[in-house]
Amino acid sequence: MKKIFLVAWVFVSLCMNAQTINSPNGKLKMSFQLTPEGEPVYELLFGGKYVIKKSKLGIELKNHPSFIKGFSVVKIDSSSKDETWEPIWGEVKQIRNNYKELAVTLSNENRNIIIRFRLFDDGLGFRYEFPRQEQLSYFIVSNEVTEFNLTGDHKTFWIPGDFDSNEYFYINCKLSEIDAGIGKEVNEISTRSLPGPTIVQTPLMMKTEEGLYINIHEAALVDYPAMNIVINQSAFSLSTVLVPDAIGNKAYLQTPCKTPWRTIIISDKAVDILASKTILNLNEPSKIENTDWIKPTKYVGIWWPMHVGTATWNYADVGNIKLDQTDWNSLKPNGKHGATTENTKRYIDFAAENGFDGVLVEGWNVGWEDWSGNWKEEVFDFVTPYPDYDVKVLEEYAKSKGVKIIMHHETSASVTNYERRMDEAYRFMKANGYDAVKTGYVGWIIPRGEHHDGQWMVNHYVRVAKTTAQYKIMLDAHEPVRPTGLHRTYPNWLACEAARGNEFNAWSRGNPPEHETILPFTRLMGGPMDYTPGIFQVKLNYYDPNKTECVHTTLVKQLALYVTMYSPLQMAADLPENYERFPDAFQFIKDVAVDWDDTKIISAEPGDYITIARKAKGKDEWYLGAITDENSRDEKVSLNFLDKGKWYVATIYADGKDAHWDRNPMVYEIKSYLVNGNTVLWLSLADGGGAAVGFKPASEKDFESLKKY
Amino acid sequence: MKKIFLVAWVFVSLCMNAQTINSPNGKLKMSFQLTPEGEPVYELLFGGKYVIKKSKLGIELKNHPSFIKGFSVVKIDSSSKDETWEPIWGEVKQIRNNYKELAVTLSNENRNIIIRFRLFDDGLGFRYEFPRQEQLSYFIVSNEVTEFNLTGDHKTFWIPGDFDSNEYFYINCKLSEIDAGIGKEVNEISTRSLPGPTIVQTPLMMKTEEGLYINIHEAALVDYPAMNIVINQSAFSLSTVLVPDAIGNKAYLQTPCKTPWRTIIISDKAVDILASKTILNLNEPSKIENTDWIKPTKYVGIWWPMHVGTATWNYADVGNIKLDQTDWNSLKPNGKHGATTENTKRYIDFAAENGFDGVLVEGWNVGWEDWSGNWKEEVFDFVTPYPDYDVKVLEEYAKSKGVKIIMHHETSASVTNYERRMDEAYRFMKANGYDAVKTGYVGWIIPRGEHHDGQWMVNHYVRVAKTTAQYKIMLDAHEPVRPTGLHRTYPNWLACEAARGNEFNAWSRGNPPEHETILPFTRLMGGPMDYTPGIFQVKLNYYDPNKTECVHTTLVKQLALYVTMYSPLQMAADLPENYERFPDAFQFIKDVAVDWDDTKIISAEPGDYITIARKAKGKDEWYLGAITDENSRDEKVSLNFLDKGKWYVATIYADGKDAHWDRNPMVYEIKSYLVNGNTVLWLSLADGGGAAVGFKPASEKDFESLKKY
Repeated sequence: MKKIFLVAWVFVSLCMNAQTINSPNGKLKMSFQLTPEGEPVYELLFGGKYVIKKSKLGIELKNHPSFIKGFSVVKIDSSSKDETWEPIWGEVKQIRNNYKELAVTLSNENRNIIIRFRLFDDGLGFRYEFPRQEQLSYFIVSNEVTEFNLTGDHKTFWIPGDFDSNEYFYINCKLSEIDAGIGKEVNEISTRSLPGPTIVQTPLMMKTEEGLYINIHEAALVDYPAMNIVINQSAFSLSTVLVPDAIGNKAYLQTPCKTPWRTIIISDKAVDILASKTILNLNEPSKIENTDWIKPTKYVGIWWPMHVGTATWNYADVGNIKLDQTDWNSLKPNGKHGATTENTKRYIDFAAENGFDGVLVEGWNVGWEDWSGNWKEEVFDFVTPYPDYDVKVLEEYAKSKGVKIIMHHETSASVTNYERRMDEAYRFMKANGYDAVKTGYVGWIIPRGEHHDGQWMVNHYVRVAKTTAQYKIMLDAHEPVRPTGLHRTYPNWLACEAARGNEFNAWSRGNPPEHETILPFTRLMGGPMDYTPGIFQVKLNYYDPNKTECVHTTLVKQLALYVTMYSPLQMAADLPENYERFPDAFQFIKDVAVDWDDTKIISAEPGDYITIARKAKGKDEWYLGAITDENSRDEKVSLNFLDKGKWYVATIYADGKDAHWDRNPMVYEIKSYLVNGNTVLWLSLADGGGAAVGFKPASEKDFESLKKY
Repeated sequence: MKKIFLVAWVFVSLCMNAQTINSPNGKLKMSFQLTPEGEPVYELLFGGKYVIKKSKLGIELKNHPSFIKGFSVVKIDSSSKDETWEPIWGEVKQIRNNYKELAVTLSNENRNIIIRFRLFDDGLGFRYEFPRQEQLSYFIVSNEVTEFNLTGDHKTFWIPGDFDSNEYFYINCKLSEIDAGIGKEVNEISTRSLPGPTIVQTPLMMKTEEGLYINIHEAALVDYPAMNIVINQSAFSLSTVLVPDAIGNKAYLQTPCKTPWRTIIISDKAVDILASKTILNLNEPSKIENTDWIKPTKYVGIWWPMHVGTATWNYADVGNIKLDQTDWNSLKPNGKHGATTENTKRYIDFAAENGFDGVLVEGWNVGWEDWSGNWKEEVFDFVTPYPDYDVKVLEEYAKSKGVKIIMHHETSASVTNYERRMDEAYRFMKANGYDAVKTGYVGWIIPRGEHHDGQWMVNHYVRVAKTTAQYKIMLDAHEPVRPTGLHRTYPNWLACEAARGNEFNAWSRGNPPEHETILPFTRLMGGPMDYTPGIFQVKLNYYDPNKTECVHTTLVKQLALYVTMYSPLQMAADLPENYERFPDAFQFIKDVAVDWDDTKIISAEPGDYITIARKAKGKDEWYLGAITDENSRDEKVSLNFLDKGKWYVATIYADGKDAHWDRNPMVYEIKSYLVNGNTVLWLSLADGGGAAVGFKPASEKDFESLKKY
């Protein structure tokens, strides 16, 4: 056996020239080879032109002989796949998974590695695999050498590399102009670990001078640290920076094992980037067998009042609290506590009246008096309510109204504490009628020295997804590592924050008007975001004349976000009383779906605009959102996605006259028309504005009352 | 109020000269003062002579203005206490707690600290307290400056300072001769973190040229790192080195809080050091209300066979196992697995026949195939038995025999994994009839970068003690931080290893013959040790002719250790078949008690010899152990501790003719005599030998059959 193996090995080794594969439609082409020094390298071409020039591949092992050069080829496997699968929930009903695969087994001193490439029509994924083998069982990754050598000084949408936060606004400049040192000035983010001025995060969105769109990210990030990217600003070469652990190691692995996929999505059309399912396709199918209990959710919550300052998470205005030594009943309430039984009932009523599935309640549990900034381990217990929050009464009340209360587990990044208490906390949830949890990781991680995006925390987030699944609990993680498509594998993990959400508009310089036109090209490439749209009262001096912050969109753009910012978990984030002031505009939020049978990316340009139409799950209803950056825009939308030969009522929510994100953000107009698949809508988006349209089949009565568009 | 406070402050500040207190019997005297720079200092005298010369006190705070000088005195409180309390179990029935106290409140920029001194007749304890205060809530300890400035180049019994291990043999030399760099050569300890060549661990035992014995340690180590000691080898000044966390900080504290006590035990008689209860007195009373379920325990176990190589912990001889991906039933058994159902039944039978309370079973649970040395997080689950170990059958069998199986939780130092699984593991124990657990922490700690003796792990050990107490589980921790008397507060925490146990004799250079004469003066000052004595087959080539290791004592010395090495948890560590070969000697192990009403330290000199007699709990029986180092010794023991005017049968287990720890260790003689309180026994201890004596009230029949001594 050994002899035969050796013969095969020599044969393959001698005949190893560049191995080339083409994507199913031939548009993309990649090749792999070993350099004379035995270093693995790859190239990638789109339409015959280089996208990635010859770039190194490899993983460095700690306390091992070199594992990045001196390789021989042992085996080359090529294959292809073309299948269609149905997500548990998503933007479309069916997803096609169509790729050509090349798997190269390399050997160095009897240690083997497989580099597996999957080439799709819209991109490439590759990963490193370490099969079970004699010479390599346990090892430490000291570095990953993966390169992405680009062909020019591309326009880039980036945020600073950071091991602990992804809550930055995006900057748009050439690769050569990037200065990630700006992260030091973003003081509204409390927990920042900036590895260097030329290091940025993924998903990294670029556009070449020739108009090619390139997105670099990763898929299926499990048991490995997140990837940052360091840029050589003269050679336009990108390479990998893995998030280190407390002592500087990158990953602890045991064979058989594999890294996440490195992904490069490419198209000459921006809309194709948003439509790409390559990252999802590179993730494993659902590991949850029975998924009946997983339900896309629209919710309201006790949350925005804390951000605008009309309520507090904490019950008392005191500092220095010890969880196990405090008599909560003896504290003097501050009178502004948001999560009271009475207030929660009001939200439950509002949710029930307006068809929302859930009510998020933050600040219900003891510990908020000094939860932040103290690197405190025993910060929350996740089971003890404040004296003014009656868990049992509210369970009954919510049940009677057909509404679910959504649990909140802020960990303050004290993850050892959360892991010790998780099981008890989930049992508490199930005993009290909760079936969804929003987690939070604000602050410096405990175990101290670990980072939000390191291997240990990556494993934690996945552990939470698995454990909540065991309890049939849906999950929404705030401040975790950026998503990489794992919601396919753990569909109870509905959404993450993992970016600069709407909340930053409430108390910081906020999100610039272009922010929401970039997020789908960057953060959302990895998965749904709980952005918390729907702020109607965008001018926040409404609450306090001295408050200068505001939401940097028009009211209508907030509506459009329910469509452009895909998530199966959508909050109507504003106060009920604000929705009651604008009931006609609120109707769109009440109507819009959170799960879809189909999605059409109609037009898009990162940093400028996005228009998307989506068909509601199991219904003949479509919803359309169009947003623009700080510049106004006229958007011509052909409704050819509608059922041919059928009439619909299109209810158009448009920016009002002279609307402007800063000067006049809250004016809007709502009009309804009869439309069909031949109709072309002309939407007029104000500076920093948007448009939202709902389409429902027209009834006979509609023909009497409405005009054709 | 503020004004009055200020007046008082100035008054005290101005009149602050040295504050002096004397111990209850006046033998010890200490004084405290501030230097002109406002640095707190103390001195300690014994019989009018300096033991500790002027030495600094203080704690440095990270990111704070100086907190070690510039102090003013705010308040001075003095008080005294004289009380007697009863331990749940122990060496004596009642303990007297008698001290004079001085508590000095100091202030620096409105930040307060209290230094509290308690002066006993045999030593001093002091600690730092941070009251609740406006200017100091959360803080990080960067350093502790506590000094112990000695008066000369004392003879010292020490082991190298190490943040991860205390499993060293002791070295005995002058302070100026200490070279802790020797720790690098102790390769039989796998996990070593040596902070420097002049850094040693506590308890640190010293003897002055004048014959004064000084022991430096700490009491009540909770929520703080362990203390190492750095030695200035010319000035004979000792100062504190706290074990750092993963990023170099020492402790994260929240007011109100306090450090452990720093303890200095002093006497001109070595026996007083061993009899001291000062460390216990400085610990808090039991926090466990109902302690009925806590029972001192004598046990056997499936353990020594793995150390001598006749059995294995692991079931199969394979490496690279993944806990959640292994079909244990499909593995090929290696045929040497110790923890089988059958073997466990044999141990249960043996325990039942010979009156043991428990049977420890190690290697019962899956994961041992690659448990060590891989820094593997998911290493054990603590609930899945190997295919050849039937938990339910053994629960029934043990119950039918009136014996308890002792659970084993080796964590491989993967503490995050253990903390996640602890509750489930304890529930599993209670569901299957276990009420005691031996834990283990072999290897590098996870969270990676943390140390065995750092604050995070100190909190872990206490958390385990508290949590097991909630489940009514008794605890024996191996490889934890060295004890500091916390068994008073958590009496379910029966014992720790935390030093070089008998096991090192099985597979390393072993423990030198003096080892057990030093341990009571060092490691055992903090609490009981699960040393696992009772090895009868001390020559280990018995198992394998090529095996050169052996136990470095005579057989009889192994008996004597049950008395000299105090623990409420005592193993008879050898194989049942070896006890069956020497049933007469085994009788002592069967007879000897594990809980005591009284203890007499008859003679002792660290590194040379120890003789102790103890009265069994609730019985008129005494047991005496005498041990010596590598030198033979004649020990004259007055039996004046026996009930006056009453006759006892003394069964004397003595080293046999020409016995010698190395050349002829297993010869012994057993003789019984009638004795009373006026008898003086002459015990002859061989080189590396010992003597053990049991005393029971004489019956009429004994007067017929036995001679008077």
